Amino acid sequence: MPRARAKLFPTPDDAETAFYDAFERADLAAMMAVWAEADDVVCIHPQGPRLVGFEAVRESWVQIFAGGAQLRVRTTEHRSFDGQSLAVHNVVELVAPPGENAPVTSIFATNVFVLTEGGWRMAMHHANVSAEAQAQAREEAPPPHTLH
Amino acid sequence: MPRARAKLFPTPDDAETAFYDAFERADLAAMMAVWAEADDVVCIHPQGPRLVGFEAVRESWVQIFAGGAQLRVRTTEHRSFDGQSLAVHNVVELVAPPGENAPVTSIFATNVFVLTEGGWRMAMHHANVSAEAQAQAREEAPPPHTLH
Repeated sequence: MPRARAKLFPTPDDAETAFYDAFERADLAAMMAVWAEADDVVCIHPQGPRLVGFEAVRESWVQIFAGGAQLRVRTTEHRSFDGQSLAVHNVVELVAPPGENAPVTSIFATNVFVLTEGGWRMAMHHANVSAEAQAQAREEAPPPHTLH
Repeated sequence: MPRARAKLFPTPDDAETAFYDAFERADLAAMMAVWAEADDVVCIHPQGPRLVGFEAVRESWVQIFAGGAQLRVRTTEHRSFDGQSLAVHNVVELVAPPGENAPVTSIFATNVFVLTEGGWRMAMHHANVSAEAQAQAREEAPPPHTLH
């Protein structure tokens, strides 16, 4: 039986689709099959630190998926720069909890893919909550000073 | 006399150096000479919207430089993915107002460069203030609710 790791992504789009699919399903094996197994991969989650290297990135997804929230993600406003062995996609992620009328958070994401012997893999994911969504969250939450 | 626009950047590093140099000097012509003159360039300033296209990006720098602040920027923790016609750099920007003991803000930035007929140019700049720096700013500022 083929291992998940053996899966090939013939294009950057295929790798990106697999990334968001793994994210929605909170599937760690599928998520890490998308990433290049390299020491120089970079991942910046919204509000998170800058993680460098496959293991640090893997650990972050372990923690995110341990939270149990299965989020819906739709990407829009795609912009791409495609090279022969390197591709950059910038998208707006519309992220929401399950449910018809759940609030949607918009996140700006830059996804970088590299062509490896195992097909296209993710080398970087840089995401931050849009300023508009941040302001909205502050309106809805108590001011941070009350948390101290 | 050669126009500033005619300047060539032989490598992505040269274009990146020129980008931060123009930023520090608040030099609009030098800044826009770094950018690819294309409708699909993308710029996300910290706390800003997602700007697409040369004119929108240019207008944002007009506004930033009109503020008059000449900031010092040092980049560190460089990670690069370099292709034949596309390059991605991820850096931590340490940004500070002039002065010896000025507070430093750390910003995560992804810079994308494309090889054009006019040498390497910037095609994307995606920057956000690190969560650590954001938390620090909130500590130092009054909570947002008092602004309304």
